[in-house]
Amino acid sequence: MSMSTQEVADKLIHFCKEGKFEEAGNALYSPDIVSVEPFAAPGQSRESKGMEAVRAKGKWWVENHEVHSSTVEGPLVAGPYFTVKFKLDVTFKPQNRRFTMEEIGLYKVADGKVVHEEFFYSM
Amino acid sequence: MSMSTQEVADKLIHFCKEGKFEEAGNALYSPDIVSVEPFAAPGQSRESKGMEAVRAKGKWWVENHEVHSSTVEGPLVAGPYFTVKFKLDVTFKPQNRRFTMEEIGLYKVADGKVVHEEFFYSM
Repeated sequence: MSMSTQEVADKLIHFCKEGKFEEAGNALYSPDIVSVEPFAAPGQSRESKGMEAVRAKGKWWVENHEVHSSTVEGPLVAGPYFTVKFKLDVTFKPQNRRFTMEEIGLYKVADGKVVHEEFFYSM
Repeated sequence: MSMSTQEVADKLIHFCKEGKFEEAGNALYSPDIVSVEPFAAPGQSRESKGMEAVRAKGKWWVENHEVHSSTVEGPLVAGPYFTVKFKLDVTFKPQNRRFTMEEIGLYKVADGKVVHEEFFYSM
């Protein structure tokens, strides 16, 4: 039997609290994952489709940010959806610029895997 | 000075816990509110734009549902965004059909007012 939304949410948060973002993806994401950002990077789409594209986005992020501290709040769970709040104190390494980012992650689960995620934040 | 996201979220939840959905809209929504449902009703749009359209949608909902009990969880707040989880035990009066609905509400605040809301649930 596949995991419930609550179980997927709890595992995702557990991984994120340990900074294990790549492991979270490997364990919990559907091969058909769609990941949506509020803004498109120049020449790119707001949407990353499929495990390979989402992994590449995550890899870029990890390589370009140093995380000083982070907090994860939630989840709120409703049917196949759950939301999490992230707060990160990071340095964007290419510019040596340190800032705090807060974002809401909204996830949809099907058959025990995350099939869609969207992040909400302002710059 | 306009209310913070946290203050708007706390007030919205307070109104919703008392079943005062119309009062919540009057007090907290921008005249330019955009409200998005996951599905469009036949012949309608997923999006309601402006206070009048959003009020009409709310009025239809209140007139067609009897609420037996409800819970509200949250908020999670991140910058201008906040999320809330609603769980409602309701009867859809036209069909005399009782069911539990769970949904995530995702809100965006600007200048102390809700300017965008989107609801996430499955049928």
